[in-house]
Amino acid sequence: MKLTVTQTRDLAHTAMRSCGYTDEEAAVIADHLLDCELRGLSFGGLARGLSVIERRSSTPAPAPITIVKETPVSATIDGGDQVGYLVATHATNLAITKASAVGVSIVAARRTWYTGMFSYYLEMITRAGFVGIAAGSGLQLVAPHGGTEGRFGTNPIAFGFPSDEQPIIWDIGTSAVMLGEVLLRQRLGDLLDDGHAYGPDGRPTRDPAEALAGALSVWGGHKGSGLALVVQLLGMMTGAAAAPEGLTDCGFFLLVIDPGLLTDGRDYRTRASEYAQSVRDTRPVDPARPVRVPFDRSAAERSRRLAEDSIDVDDRVYHTLRSLTEECALYLDEASPD
Amino acid sequence: MKLTVTQTRDLAHTAMRSCGYTDEEAAVIADHLLDCELRGLSFGGLARGLSVIERRSSTPAPAPITIVKETPVSATIDGGDQVGYLVATHATNLAITKASAVGVSIVAARRTWYTGMFSYYLEMITRAGFVGIAAGSGLQLVAPHGGTEGRFGTNPIAFGFPSDEQPIIWDIGTSAVMLGEVLLRQRLGDLLDDGHAYGPDGRPTRDPAEALAGALSVWGGHKGSGLALVVQLLGMMTGAAAAPEGLTDCGFFLLVIDPGLLTDGRDYRTRASEYAQSVRDTRPVDPARPVRVPFDRSAAERSRRLAEDSIDVDDRVYHTLRSLTEECALYLDEASPD
Repeated sequence: MKLTVTQTRDLAHTAMRSCGYTDEEAAVIADHLLDCELRGLSFGGLARGLSVIERRSSTPAPAPITIVKETPVSATIDGGDQVGYLVATHATNLAITKASAVGVSIVAARRTWYTGMFSYYLEMITRAGFVGIAAGSGLQLVAPHGGTEGRFGTNPIAFGFPSDEQPIIWDIGTSAVMLGEVLLRQRLGDLLDDGHAYGPDGRPTRDPAEALAGALSVWGGHKGSGLALVVQLLGMMTGAAAAPEGLTDCGFFLLVIDPGLLTDGRDYRTRASEYAQSVRDTRPVDPARPVRVPFDRSAAERSRRLAEDSIDVDDRVYHTLRSLTEECALYLDEASPD
Repeated sequence: MKLTVTQTRDLAHTAMRSCGYTDEEAAVIADHLLDCELRGLSFGGLARGLSVIERRSSTPAPAPITIVKETPVSATIDGGDQVGYLVATHATNLAITKASAVGVSIVAARRTWYTGMFSYYLEMITRAGFVGIAAGSGLQLVAPHGGTEGRFGTNPIAFGFPSDEQPIIWDIGTSAVMLGEVLLRQRLGDLLDDGHAYGPDGRPTRDPAEALAGALSVWGGHKGSGLALVVQLLGMMTGAAAAPEGLTDCGFFLLVIDPGLLTDGRDYRTRASEYAQSVRDTRPVDPARPVRVPFDRSAAERSRRLAEDSIDVDDRVYHTLRSLTEECALYLDEASPD
């Protein structure tokens, strides 16, 4: 079905309110889910909202987000088992404030889950004119190169740079296939691509269920495996476990740099714009497919959907979200003391 | 031929003294070249020493290394056209000092060339108990994914982490084939592998000379191309040009973090050791090939050569280095005012 932008945001917001989030918290989560839908990453949008409600409803109420260690250039956050959208937004705002004062900052968060797209936080950072690096560790689902057992999370890493036009944001996962893709293929009864997973016996498999019981392959062979290890070790600096049990203790590492610390910040943004354009203008292998700069695709998809004011939402996702929202609202009413 | 470790160091040191470096400068360069030889990376060892002499002898004397911008957490260095071994060593020592005081530091250098192995500097950083990130931009030799013209340097990037045993250092180039490898194949009359380069006309080529006139391919397809772009944008924060003309204005970006800023530093090193061991202990795909952690191979090669006190040096490299050293010494004698 088709929803307008406002309808999509309201649907997400109401759903989050119904499962116990405050108005402000629900707005933060809804904005992130909406942005996924606008960028055409629907697995991270309303569908992910369903998982948030399930996780939030099936576990004890989270503790407040607290800062456990702080200096003028840094903070270590205990996420209190809050959903990552809230923890990472808090971390990003804090990192921007500190970098504004000192020129560089590091904020590390642990005890959180579902942080969403790192590019979302990097857009907040690049809007402030800053450069950002984000890395996240999690469950051991991915095998190192040459191995058949999980040692890495799907370990996203992202770098963002401001420019005079749209930011340049590189945001990747270090697994050969996204976990969301594996779960989707399992639901649809489809097989995985060759070489993307090992079963629990260590043999290659194309069965999503076997892959989830075994391990996903890492992206990029030996070099890519090293990058996944790097992300895990950055995540461990947050204090998060190397191998969290269940979706409980993911690490979120964030570093923010004001380019004005090192060079002229305004000039840097202009040079970054010109350089990105020179990359787009590279003579292409295939004249029909110009060279793309990371985030170009996302920015174009979002602009198009905003202009059309129309988002395609899967009917099942819509109806499940509506009925979960009603169930939760009923439960909250019953539990209410007045 | 075989040289002892001391003979190798002395050969490099004398060669650098002869072409105008001070005793202290020559020692810094010789230590780096020796370390390449010990780790079995001979293209970056004595052979690279030849290129240093050629570059140093054929260009005006460099200016002193100067700091053009400085805060308690940062410094921007003008390398004064000094060789990168000297500039990056200076940058690394400065970054370690600042990170010791504040917990995090960024040092950026421009106007330099030949910085060598980034892992060398990351070992200095991890020995201090710190985490490091290094990135370097340079000549536009590598085409972005989907393009056939150079826009990136070979853009090395490296991350290093301290542990209770040897450090974990991931140090890669973002081109599909190393520039040194292309130059070597050109000298030997060998062809490049398929898919590693484009000629100046934009067609795929296996001819090293055509590749050098055209562009090398980037590593890792679309994801790897994004990483190469990230390295270029980090390098540009040093103030270095996006597209330096000739081997003159490479950028060196260095970030140092004391893990004690965020968590317990000693505990972090122990957890990093244990985690690295768990990666090595992953059930292997091939029982004869255990899973490796980045830097394991280098550390083992170095230990072996140190124990044997023996380094294999190419005869031609040895004799060319000796004769260049004698020529330079003669020239310096003539040029000497006394």
